[in-house]
Amino acid sequence: MPAPTLLVLDADPLPRLGRLTGRARIVHTDAAGLPARLPEADVLLVWDTAADVVRERWAGAGARPAWVHVAGVPVDRVLGLGLAASDAVVTNARGVFEEAVAEYVVALVLAMAKGLPAAWEAQRAREWRHREVLRVGGTRAVVVGTGPVGRTVARALKAVGVGVALVGRVARTGVHGPGDLDRLLARAEWVVAAAPLTEATRGMFDARRFGVMLPSARFVNVARGELVDEEALAGALRRRWIAGAALDVTARQPLAPGSPLWDVPDLLVTPRASGAFVGRHDRLAAQFVELWERWEAGRRLVNVVDKARGYVPGY
Amino acid sequence: MPAPTLLVLDADPLPRLGRLTGRARIVHTDAAGLPARLPEADVLLVWDTAADVVRERWAGAGARPAWVHVAGVPVDRVLGLGLAASDAVVTNARGVFEEAVAEYVVALVLAMAKGLPAAWEAQRAREWRHREVLRVGGTRAVVVGTGPVGRTVARALKAVGVGVALVGRVARTGVHGPGDLDRLLARAEWVVAAAPLTEATRGMFDARRFGVMLPSARFVNVARGELVDEEALAGALRRRWIAGAALDVTARQPLAPGSPLWDVPDLLVTPRASGAFVGRHDRLAAQFVELWERWEAGRRLVNVVDKARGYVPGY
Repeated sequence: MPAPTLLVLDADPLPRLGRLTGRARIVHTDAAGLPARLPEADVLLVWDTAADVVRERWAGAGARPAWVHVAGVPVDRVLGLGLAASDAVVTNARGVFEEAVAEYVVALVLAMAKGLPAAWEAQRAREWRHREVLRVGGTRAVVVGTGPVGRTVARALKAVGVGVALVGRVARTGVHGPGDLDRLLARAEWVVAAAPLTEATRGMFDARRFGVMLPSARFVNVARGELVDEEALAGALRRRWIAGAALDVTARQPLAPGSPLWDVPDLLVTPRASGAFVGRHDRLAAQFVELWERWEAGRRLVNVVDKARGYVPGY
Repeated sequence: MPAPTLLVLDADPLPRLGRLTGRARIVHTDAAGLPARLPEADVLLVWDTAADVVRERWAGAGARPAWVHVAGVPVDRVLGLGLAASDAVVTNARGVFEEAVAEYVVALVLAMAKGLPAAWEAQRAREWRHREVLRVGGTRAVVVGTGPVGRTVARALKAVGVGVALVGRVARTGVHGPGDLDRLLARAEWVVAAAPLTEATRGMFDARRFGVMLPSARFVNVARGELVDEEALAGALRRRWIAGAALDVTARQPLAPGSPLWDVPDLLVTPRASGAFVGRHDRLAAQFVELWERWEAGRRLVNVVDKARGYVPGY
């Protein structure tokens, strides 16, 4: 029996894939080569940063991979209609990024509370500018999204003394439903978006929701840019409806040099850095090899995405 | 019996001192007026930022206050020979600043791990610059200083997943002695100075100690500037002996616009902001009123500084 074909799209080097030597025929491709290669692939491995092309190129005749693994957490960028309607199993990298993303959220929250961006402006100007800082302990956060990222973010914020309310798609033990969201937003110093991008969440942080927040509130998005109406956020910051925001993701990535977001007052923009931790390639490859071994042995895959919902259910 | 005289030096407004109405004759003074006012004072209340003048002006004839309260944690700036040799009791603000300082240390550690200063440079340049970040969980820190600040810093770092070794003046349960310091420095990603300034600690972070640290190490000082040989630190950063540093205190404060420290690579300088949290005036005044009430009732004061050692002992 010939080894199955693993098609790898535009990946950063994953040294551990060497473990599949003799067990997989590994074919690398770029976006342009994808449509021609798809029919021969048994398995497709995709970085989520390269995932748009899968959604765009999936349509067409011929055999498709039975399994698509996204080496990232959000899967909306691969999940076009063609893939959603197909029999292919989609898995993601749940378990690899959560702690890093949670650390990044805590870093942004503390940096805003302690006024670090202003401190560095003052340092550039060689000015010893006295200023007050905010305590984080005893403040309140709302975390929207109850998957592993949202829950890990909530735990990390609690560890620095923040009271956290989790908001999910449905109310359940320890989780508020969407009906509580506005009431919770109205009393939180920190609002963190950690939800998957679905039709229910697209654009959910809009002018009305920023209007409900406290003037002292700061908003953080580490999930997907399209959760946020960016124009409404910029307006809310310019009008001082809220005190600050940090976006590690934006609707268009990379953000163009001409984007008005770069210089909105009290808005920090970082280039999707939360998950870009040193060591992730090893973790991602080890996870993929483990999944491959399950698949090879005919065992049930884990981290399987519910293609109708658009995320891995179970939380 | 006339109300005792409380001499207040250059304080920010402390609304709660109003509670002492009728029980204290409150006299405000500035540095120039201090020597003339000292002989009539029963109690002296000093901001630690205004404390140099007490050390400098204490010498001289006449009655002195029996009790000096420093509304801050470090007391080296009041403790001149005159005061140290006198019968006056010195107290400090232990209990007010620890949590805020610990949050600030975690903020600096996370900001350095996540490369936030570089991210904001990129934002100013309107550039979406991909970069990797470091995990903080699983790294190691050495915290030098086992008073309430050092211990609270250690607890806060542990809460974000950092393994912490505490180093104090003498080895005891849970605390390493000075003999372990170099060995611990040689394997720590984070080195935090949280010790009082005494003859034993002055200049302890010198070229030799920066030389012992890992090339990936980052140094944080939230205690007293004079713990650090600043020229040696600048050299260590320029030669890449260590990866970064953050000074919230410097030997001379405010740092002059011409100081070479402002633009040492990978050095963050902030203006003693760790303790400047919103709400501290209320906490400081409430603490002082409580101490006043003990003193008035002839009860033993707490937070009493050991004037020979230069800090409040007991840890």
